[in-house]
Amino acid sequence: MHILVMSGPNLNLLGTREPDLYGHATLDQIHDRLRREAESLGCTVECFQSNHEGALIDLLHAQRERAAGALLNAGGLTHTSVSLHDTIKAMPFPVIEVHLSNIHAREPWRDHSVLAAAVRAQVAGLGWYSYLAAFHGLIALLRDEQP
Amino acid sequence: MHILVMSGPNLNLLGTREPDLYGHATLDQIHDRLRREAESLGCTVECFQSNHEGALIDLLHAQRERAAGALLNAGGLTHTSVSLHDTIKAMPFPVIEVHLSNIHAREPWRDHSVLAAAVRAQVAGLGWYSYLAAFHGLIALLRDEQP
Amino acid sequence: MHILVMSGPNLNLLGTREPDLYGHATLDQIHDRLRREAESLGCTVECFQSNHEGALIDLLHAQRERAAGALLNAGGLTHTSVSLHDTIKAMPFPVIEVHLSNIHAREPWRDHSVLAAAVRAQVAGLGWYSYLAAFHGLIALLRDEQP
Amino acid sequence: MHILVMSGPNLNLLGTREPDLYGHATLDQIHDRLRREAESLGCTVECFQSNHEGALIDLLHAQRERAAGALLNAGGLTHTSVSLHDTIKAMPFPVIEVHLSNIHAREPWRDHSVLAAAVRAQVAGLGWYSYLAAFHGLIALLRDEQP
Amino acid sequence: MHILVMSGPNLNLLGTREPDLYGHATLDQIHDRLRREAESLGCTVECFQSNHEGALIDLLHAQRERAAGALLNAGGLTHTSVSLHDTIKAMPFPVIEVHLSNIHAREPWRDHSVLAAAVRAQVAGLGWYSYLAAFHGLIALLRDEQP
Amino acid sequence: MHILVMSGPNLNLLGTREPDLYGHATLDQIHDRLRREAESLGCTVECFQSNHEGALIDLLHAQRERAAGALLNAGGLTHTSVSLHDTIKAMPFPVIEVHLSNIHAREPWRDHSVLAAAVRAQVAGLGWYSYLAAFHGLIALLRDEQP
Amino acid sequence: MHILVMSGPNLNLLGTREPDLYGHATLDQIHDRLRREAESLGCTVECFQSNHEGALIDLLHAQRERAAGALLNAGGLTHTSVSLHDTIKAMPFPVIEVHLSNIHAREPWRDHSVLAAAVRAQVAGLGWYSYLAAFHGLIALLRDEQP
Amino acid sequence: MHILVMSGPNLNLLGTREPDLYGHATLDQIHDRLRREAESLGCTVECFQSNHEGALIDLLHAQRERAAGALLNAGGLTHTSVSLHDTIKAMPFPVIEVHLSNIHAREPWRDHSVLAAAVRAQVAGLGWYSYLAAFHGLIALLRDEQP
Amino acid sequence: MHILVMSGPNLNLLGTREPDLYGHATLDQIHDRLRREAESLGCTVECFQSNHEGALIDLLHAQRERAAGALLNAGGLTHTSVSLHDTIKAMPFPVIEVHLSNIHAREPWRDHSVLAAAVRAQVAGLGWYSYLAAFHGLIALLRDEQP
Amino acid sequence: MHILVMSGPNLNLLGTREPDLYGHATLDQIHDRLRREAESLGCTVECFQSNHEGALIDLLHAQRERAAGALLNAGGLTHTSVSLHDTIKAMPFPVIEVHLSNIHAREPWRDHSVLAAAVRAQVAGLGWYSYLAAFHGLIALLRDEQP
Amino acid sequence: MHILVMSGPNLNLLGTREPDLYGHATLDQIHDRLRREAESLGCTVECFQSNHEGALIDLLHAQRERAAGALLNAGGLTHTSVSLHDTIKAMPFPVIEVHLSNIHAREPWRDHSVLAAAVRAQVAGLGWYSYLAAFHGLIALLRDEQP
Amino acid sequence: MHILVMSGPNLNLLGTREPDLYGHATLDQIHDRLRREAESLGCTVECFQSNHEGALIDLLHAQRERAAGALLNAGGLTHTSVSLHDTIKAMPFPVIEVHLSNIHAREPWRDHSVLAAAVRAQVAGLGWYSYLAAFHGLIALLRDEQP
Repeated sequence: MHILVMSGPNLNLLGTREPDLYGHATLDQIHDRLRREAESLGCTVECFQSNHEGALIDLLHAQRERAAGALLNAGGLTHTSVSLHDTIKAMPFPVIEVHLSNIHAREPWRDHSVLAAAVRAQVAGLGWYSYLAAFHGLIALLRDEQP
Repeated sequence: MHILVMSGPNLNLLGTREPDLYGHATLDQIHDRLRREAESLGCTVECFQSNHEGALIDLLHAQRERAAGALLNAGGLTHTSVSLHDTIKAMPFPVIEVHLSNIHAREPWRDHSVLAAAVRAQVAGLGWYSYLAAFHGLIALLRDEQP
Repeated sequence: MHILVMSGPNLNLLGTREPDLYGHATLDQIHDRLRREAESLGCTVECFQSNHEGALIDLLHAQRERAAGALLNAGGLTHTSVSLHDTIKAMPFPVIEVHLSNIHAREPWRDHSVLAAAVRAQVAGLGWYSYLAAFHGLIALLRDEQP
Repeated sequence: MHILVMSGPNLNLLGTREPDLYGHATLDQIHDRLRREAESLGCTVECFQSNHEGALIDLLHAQRERAAGALLNAGGLTHTSVSLHDTIKAMPFPVIEVHLSNIHAREPWRDHSVLAAAVRAQVAGLGWYSYLAAFHGLIALLRDEQP
Repeated sequence: MHILVMSGPNLNLLGTREPDLYGHATLDQIHDRLRREAESLGCTVECFQSNHEGALIDLLHAQRERAAGALLNAGGLTHTSVSLHDTIKAMPFPVIEVHLSNIHAREPWRDHSVLAAAVRAQVAGLGWYSYLAAFHGLIALLRDEQP
Repeated sequence: MHILVMSGPNLNLLGTREPDLYGHATLDQIHDRLRREAESLGCTVECFQSNHEGALIDLLHAQRERAAGALLNAGGLTHTSVSLHDTIKAMPFPVIEVHLSNIHAREPWRDHSVLAAAVRAQVAGLGWYSYLAAFHGLIALLRDEQP
Repeated sequence: MHILVMSGPNLNLLGTREPDLYGHATLDQIHDRLRREAESLGCTVECFQSNHEGALIDLLHAQRERAAGALLNAGGLTHTSVSLHDTIKAMPFPVIEVHLSNIHAREPWRDHSVLAAAVRAQVAGLGWYSYLAAFHGLIALLRDEQP
Repeated sequence: MHILVMSGPNLNLLGTREPDLYGHATLDQIHDRLRREAESLGCTVECFQSNHEGALIDLLHAQRERAAGALLNAGGLTHTSVSLHDTIKAMPFPVIEVHLSNIHAREPWRDHSVLAAAVRAQVAGLGWYSYLAAFHGLIALLRDEQP
Repeated sequence: MHILVMSGPNLNLLGTREPDLYGHATLDQIHDRLRREAESLGCTVECFQSNHEGALIDLLHAQRERAAGALLNAGGLTHTSVSLHDTIKAMPFPVIEVHLSNIHAREPWRDHSVLAAAVRAQVAGLGWYSYLAAFHGLIALLRDEQP
Repeated sequence: MHILVMSGPNLNLLGTREPDLYGHATLDQIHDRLRREAESLGCTVECFQSNHEGALIDLLHAQRERAAGALLNAGGLTHTSVSLHDTIKAMPFPVIEVHLSNIHAREPWRDHSVLAAAVRAQVAGLGWYSYLAAFHGLIALLRDEQP
Repeated sequence: MHILVMSGPNLNLLGTREPDLYGHATLDQIHDRLRREAESLGCTVECFQSNHEGALIDLLHAQRERAAGALLNAGGLTHTSVSLHDTIKAMPFPVIEVHLSNIHAREPWRDHSVLAAAVRAQVAGLGWYSYLAAFHGLIALLRDEQP
Repeated sequence: MHILVMSGPNLNLLGTREPDLYGHATLDQIHDRLRREAESLGCTVECFQSNHEGALIDLLHAQRERAAGALLNAGGLTHTSVSLHDTIKAMPFPVIEVHLSNIHAREPWRDHSVLAAAVRAQVAGLGWYSYLAAFHGLIALLRDEQP
């Protein structure tokens, strides 16, 4: 089981950018943790960050046949990218939207995600742990785990 | 560490109501799983469901001194209850909003949560697992877990 | 065939409250008439009024297995209660929305019912007779009456 | 007591057009049933259908001195015709708005009726029976029937 | 100089319909007065009323080569008829919008005229005299009268 | 019979300011014409222009006991001055709103007059003649002229 | 003269909840002060707090024949409860809306009160003193006090 | 294969009305071209223009059993006619919306077509050629042409 | 302790203007009462009315160093004057907004005060007594009175 | 005559992505058909697809001196890219907007194209044939073809 | 070359009012700097401040023949004064809008300037230097300076 | 002191694209002038243009440690790019928004900048000189220049 972990614009700055809001963990640290977690669960992750909307779309296209699911923190593209919305809808696997901060408690225009109508689930506000919670949620969905 | 797990209107019907949308797990099954999970993590959970907004508020007030955090799936009250919003803001502990379905991908009026501005985080769309992911996220927040 | 007749906030004041708008019939008189009408049609009615949203939801849950249909005049909750909307959608039987006054010809915010998207039909503006017309309509639906 | 029964654009197609939504009864069958019902109640009905807004207005004007009340299913004109709104307000008799489907549970723009502010009552969602329920409601209003 | 005087839906009821709002003068009386006024000014008027949007459009088309200007009280079509708006824009002569009541002081949706963007001027609220004031204004425009 | 003629901000520039839009007549010329017209009708006019909202209000207050009616071209204050709206409502005599250009065919925010809900009538788009048409309309109202 | 003093959701937390916003006085202290004030003015007060919308409605119904007026701080229900709005309209006595904080200077959705259209007056932003100012205002209204 | 070609209000003026916007071709010339084109493709066209919404609806009803598809340029009705929308939905054949000008680049209210949700496709802005492009597109659809 | 009492446009007409809405007390009578009240409380008041926005701003500027607080009934400027909002924010002392009528129960545009975001509190709907209640509230704030 | 054919995000997936909505033809097949069509008409086409907004802009800039016209299916960028809008306006040749599906009959936010105000025409809903219809339309425009 | 420098409501308080937001420079200091700057550039400036909208309009009218350009910081009038907008449009010289703070990053209602549609340019957020930057920009415009 | 000068989509076309709106100066000429200006002020500038949002973000990230400030003319991205907004907020140095045309006086959707909430200041409408004015403003900010 191969899982994509994708992060969009400005997330390469994690740890240095507005740490009160986004926390002190760097994206590399998060990726490492996810890789360790994946190993213990018998699956693989592939991590990718880009500030280019087109590059994120290209990557999803390239992984269309290969990935079993994806996490996507699209950063500022969350609120505007109809193209990413369409890409997600065109994927045969589930995508989970991830946000470090609680986007629903910030500026009014950050409350709405144009990706949300295409993704399976959304996790927001748990800091770096949002990635981990979404990762476990994705695995649970794929394995149809029951309580 | 004592954690509240609260569910609002219609969640007592889980498992029988629109299973395609909400899944087949019952609220009791979810509560049992959370209790087992809590035990393994060395903390306690207290589970509560009511169809009455006032009863949810009363309970939060009653636990104000005792709980370390709370999960809240407020059902339909999510989109209208300013009173619950105010209750959450008045609590000294973090509250995480939980939804079984992806509320951002349904009717337009379900996209917005009036509670969201008061909670710490939101998990939506992972089915019964939303409770579990939020539970782990809450513990991670309270223990300030790092990657 | 068992029919629920439910009335929400302030409808206990019928006959005394703004009679120019709501008429002089009391809720008891309406309930009596519906009982007589039901008897002549070979079915039963059960009548209930509460000013508590939660109590209306509890009652619908309790009757979920037993009722064949319901009339619901939700009063002021009509325009705000997403929870009641969700309850109605979770019922296996049809619910008909009833209003004494023509809610579409009053304050702008009374024009829209959040319940309407979940009910089968709506009767508004016939005074106490709205209950009777909706009752006959419900029976006709259940018996699939043809012209 | 003479009652008008008026139907607007596309209602001549009843029975053939989207039967899942509008039912299998034809407008002629509904008119026949209303005539039988009227006879049994000692009054007369006059039935009229047109796809022309102007023709509906002309007819209401022509019946201004003669009718005691009217049923009006204005079809798509319901949501746009200020002229019909004004005509209804200019009539000395009550008009009841009729809809086969529950217009409040369909496209957002079908939720609002510009006629509603001028009519006495509205019945929607009971299929062909909406006409019959509205007819009985109109008679009850005109005879000031009590519970 | 030939002037058109056109009135739309429900204006045939003038004098009988809501006289507190629209006054006691009939449309015939207004037409007579305009004919007398025209005679004294050396021009002709042609008066027309219809409840059919299409008939009003047809008439304007038919007079396109002949009329020097037009008064138009479009009644309820004022607020909805994009087609009449387009017709007015297609005429080589100026059209003045006439309203008996002050449409800007009534229901919110009556404040906006979709015709207004196509007409030269608007006179509203002077009762039957609105026609006369608009008529004089039209003549003054056509004759380029100076103070 | 004493009639007020009031003009607001920038109307002192008439004749020089955007003549394509507002015409070549000056405010003095319009005032002269109105005085001549008044004389021939056996009444008096008093003309006033100010760029100060407060001064227009003061003048209306001062004339409250004396004037029989007023024309008011409030210029840019038309669209914003709740205070002038309130002043007009407090006057015992009718006020008619005057505009040289057709305010309903320009910028969207010029379509709505906050004064309109308080005035008796509105004349817009006849150039300098708007004053004259409104003046005749006011006299006709005060003398209750019939067709 | 018997006066009701009613407080809604979360007001039982006064003094402990966000004291920078709501002050340090408890609801009991406010009730005591109102009782002393009432005594000195020769009237009685009855104080009530509930987090249940239905309970507030029930109480108003129960006091319908007995109270001469009421103060109501409905907390979060202020902005959503159409049912309370309807209850207030159904009361034969005046109700004054009370808020500790200036609701018009906080979140946008707190600016609008759905109760305001039904109450006689509103006092907001004076902290605990809002109750006292409203109480004096209510007595002045009931006694028709003049300056 | 029989194709309907329908044009609504003001399209009879084509060639003379605002030629800069709508071009110099007359509707008759367009109809002739379509007839020639149809002949060469082995099908027939029937052309119809009316300024009456009702007449367009009547015609579509009359052709319901006979036509294989339709082109519809509804003129100003495009933006307002819910009735035509409903008629199109009730037809068993596809309808293609045609506009000479680019309606999406003009007044804001011309950007939205209420017919669009019911038609199969829309061609706008190609002048008279819009009819021809839509005609070819309709034939391609009906014959399921592949690249 | 020196208190400013400021009233804006049209409040000089109090007692004569729409007494059903605003009451029979004149502004002079209110000012006298406030002066007596102030004397008994050991402070002074200075009363001012103007129909000019600029004059109200000038006065507040002039009293910036001297006043301890202010009451402001800005009349129609309440809903539009960003300048007064800015002036209030620039004052070192608290300002309380006063309204005779319940502005939240009138025209929709009167529900919102642009001053409200800058003032400390708002009293509306108590008639002339609104000034007195606000005055006592201001003194209580300045003296930090406790229950 | 050299024609550009440009396609934006996700259109490289044509034929595999949601074929019920977008059809089974691949972009290569469409390009081939257009090349054959161009050849038969004596002109050339150059086809380009990118998921990067910037690359589409760069290409248009590069072809500014060379192309005689362009077809553009901007995919999800249609609804958000002000930059592409500006690029189109900066081109000396006409651009025609192409959509496979009827964007006006899908999600509300897909109804509006920000490109539409800059393009000459729009063809939507004809599946792969939209490209062909637009291509013929563009040639007809460039050659000023008459009926 | 004579340049007007105009400042509106509350700008006389510069230096004392909210210095964190508006800076410590006084308006006199800014005027002095502009005079020195003007001298070095061979032109003159005339500086004016008023809290009265009418006075600002009067001054612009008075300078209509004399000034070559103007800077205008209209303070709170920026967001509401249609009259000033109209005055600016009536001037034969360019006006540049000046703001000390970045009005686009504050309250939502401060984002929009009703003057902006009439001015040539806008400089906002550079503190006192906004005046200087706008002054240089105005001179560059008037002298048609090239890079 | 090192200053970034960044320009977004379509600004490479300056001088050739719509010169009436954007002027005849090319971006190279502007860059040259800024370099000369910088030299005379003892600082350096680095100039960059791209049509790719991602490239602009990458550059700002790369200069995060090195630049003392930046000018940014984001072209069409100004109105949509939440990602650029977030990038600017993540920079430790001030950014000034630059526009050649007065964006507040064009299409309604160009009035609002999503970058504005993150930048320090905005200069719009001075043509190429906007860059120069913003450059001087930035230096003045960084050097804390006083009048």
